[in-house]
Amino acid sequence: MSRRRLFGLGAASVAAVGAGAVVTRSFAEEPVAHAASASDPVSFYGPHQAGVTTPAQDRLHFVAFDVITKNKADLVELLQEWTAAAARMTQGKDAGTFGAVGGAPEAPPDDTGEALGLPASGLTLTVGFGPSLFDERFGLGDRRPPALADLPAFPGEDLQPEISGGDICVQACAHDPQVAVHAIRNLARIGFGKVSVRYSQLGFGRTSSTSRAQATPRNLMGFKDGTNNLKLEDTAMLRDHLWAAPGDGPAWMDGGTYLVTRKIRMHIETWDRAPLAEQEAIFGRDKGKGAPLTGHGEFDAPDFAKKGPDGTPVIAGNAHVRLAHPDAHGGARLLRRGYNFVDGSDGLGRLDAGLFFMAYQRDPRKQFVPIQRMLSQKDALNEYIKHVSSGLFACPPGVTDGGDYWGRTLFA
Amino acid sequence: MSRRRLFGLGAASVAAVGAGAVVTRSFAEEPVAHAASASDPVSFYGPHQAGVTTPAQDRLHFVAFDVITKNKADLVELLQEWTAAAARMTQGKDAGTFGAVGGAPEAPPDDTGEALGLPASGLTLTVGFGPSLFDERFGLGDRRPPALADLPAFPGEDLQPEISGGDICVQACAHDPQVAVHAIRNLARIGFGKVSVRYSQLGFGRTSSTSRAQATPRNLMGFKDGTNNLKLEDTAMLRDHLWAAPGDGPAWMDGGTYLVTRKIRMHIETWDRAPLAEQEAIFGRDKGKGAPLTGHGEFDAPDFAKKGPDGTPVIAGNAHVRLAHPDAHGGARLLRRGYNFVDGSDGLGRLDAGLFFMAYQRDPRKQFVPIQRMLSQKDALNEYIKHVSSGLFACPPGVTDGGDYWGRTLFA
Repeated sequence: MSRRRLFGLGAASVAAVGAGAVVTRSFAEEPVAHAASASDPVSFYGPHQAGVTTPAQDRLHFVAFDVITKNKADLVELLQEWTAAAARMTQGKDAGTFGAVGGAPEAPPDDTGEALGLPASGLTLTVGFGPSLFDERFGLGDRRPPALADLPAFPGEDLQPEISGGDICVQACAHDPQVAVHAIRNLARIGFGKVSVRYSQLGFGRTSSTSRAQATPRNLMGFKDGTNNLKLEDTAMLRDHLWAAPGDGPAWMDGGTYLVTRKIRMHIETWDRAPLAEQEAIFGRDKGKGAPLTGHGEFDAPDFAKKGPDGTPVIAGNAHVRLAHPDAHGGARLLRRGYNFVDGSDGLGRLDAGLFFMAYQRDPRKQFVPIQRMLSQKDALNEYIKHVSSGLFACPPGVTDGGDYWGRTLFA
Repeated sequence: MSRRRLFGLGAASVAAVGAGAVVTRSFAEEPVAHAASASDPVSFYGPHQAGVTTPAQDRLHFVAFDVITKNKADLVELLQEWTAAAARMTQGKDAGTFGAVGGAPEAPPDDTGEALGLPASGLTLTVGFGPSLFDERFGLGDRRPPALADLPAFPGEDLQPEISGGDICVQACAHDPQVAVHAIRNLARIGFGKVSVRYSQLGFGRTSSTSRAQATPRNLMGFKDGTNNLKLEDTAMLRDHLWAAPGDGPAWMDGGTYLVTRKIRMHIETWDRAPLAEQEAIFGRDKGKGAPLTGHGEFDAPDFAKKGPDGTPVIAGNAHVRLAHPDAHGGARLLRRGYNFVDGSDGLGRLDAGLFFMAYQRDPRKQFVPIQRMLSQKDALNEYIKHVSSGLFACPPGVTDGGDYWGRTLFA
């Protein structure tokens, strides 16, 4: 039984996300790869994990866990329990199996309850394994993919270890933050004694489109972000740039992908006092429409050779659009899936705000690393941002059916 | 011109909040007290401030400012500038007057831009003045309302001064967090050099209904919260319990109301391991439907006298529903308007989560204080929660028209 069938609150709850129609899906129906409305479920099973090319939902709750059990069998059992709960929650059901807040009165509820009555809301749960999971604890050292090489240090970064790394990450994306938070919180509850929360991050506005059906959103600098992002419709590009393929590395990652996360604090108060012309020169784009400074529409190709009346390039040598462009990196691309964040204030009279950058890719050594190396050295934007956390995760292929589980190809 | 007219992104942006239709309002039309859809604007002008009885929106960005200017005229000028910007932003326009990201290229934009293309999203901005504003700096000491008496200390609280108090607060509520964040950020930008951000708090799920048209939402303990809240339809009750009336105190507060904020950290990991029967006994309600333990439906009146087979009250003496009930406080009531929060994790393997409690009332000395005194001494819930911040604010009456401004009745 779905949460909303049990509690009959569908209409009111859906009104909260503004959608007109609740679609109650039966599992006998064909699974959908992508939800048709903001309240619909996204299919959990498939060759790739959901939450990567799934059209980016509006809200994020990202968590990194430290594994505290020393017992590999315990860890595998947890991954199996998590998978079962994830399969349920992504379909709009409670995390447990005894009913919404069941089972017995003398036992803790097997669902924490705060999402009762809420629809699936496009929830996806995407798991990844960090380099530290491949240390001596579980004997996985020889299964560590070469592409999961530790990221190098980059100039200007100021990484805080307590919000970096992690043995296992889970990305929860949904159109309702209560649903995303509920999912992470229940995974943490199920993992009690085996894992502990290393850090978690809420994000409130997607900063990239992952589908041509989505408009390009804006980051907290007020600019459209991710105009040239990889999109789910670009099948050939996804094959080349997103999914790990046979021969890339260990077979357990075939069909998987690699996630790099970077918490990027923005000095927004300083930014807000920069002249419009300077802001546009830094991005190399018009702030209103998002057009490159050499063009008129958002999707016009930037003309990096074009010079102005004074003989200097219209798009400056250190403009973000130039340095981040695939042409500057031998065609390297990322599927970006970041979110804006505001974590209150910083005690110095400023908002603690920025971008929680997340990018999926086939091999960070050939994609994120060279791109970030160039950006960290030259990008004019660096005056206004600072990378304060870093994460790297191998996200295994999708769970194929009810007998499969997160990480089976790694552990089995 | 509205943001969406300028940028023509209405359809895609509205899809982000899931609504089907964008209503483009003309200002010649009658203002609406309450938005009809999640993307509509809420009227800014009126005898009372919006954001109090307005049906609680889904998202919150709350900020408390310290005033750093010593000059009263500067402060008044800021309040006038803020009012003009608030009037614009609540109607879905940018904060400035020179166009969306204008005006001149050599000047900073007069809007930060991240809400360009987004509809009004039900944004309300509600201002309040804290006790500290009435100290010696601005000569307002004799205008401090008696009802703005410092809150007493309560047992068990662990208040952090850096996230408590504040000279001026602004509550931004909207159905889209990007819109709420944009509004607070632009007020902070406009106030640069005159105010600094003392603390700010994001909330992601309303925890009370303020209208009979809204379903009762759930807090992070998984229980329905605010079943007996004051609602906008209860006109006589609002007059008695919500709005300051002539004779209550200084005339500048007539039509205003008092806001108490409390950040309540929940020990959710401990809670999640408590048996269902214990959780329900603590609240005095059924977790699924929200019915009192003596009834069957959420809105059934609790029967506090009813005893079980063992002769003890079915609703325990220390149950939350009993202690918070108006009958326990001579009929005292609050208009609660709180939000769930998750501020990442606490470095000890736990989510930093809970309730940002906000309650509006006519006189905290007769409402919040006696209620909280009893709860803090007896509530069974205390084992699972801790109050970590406190705020108290006098929220003046509404701005009547374009010539009026926030706090005019106080400063003029």
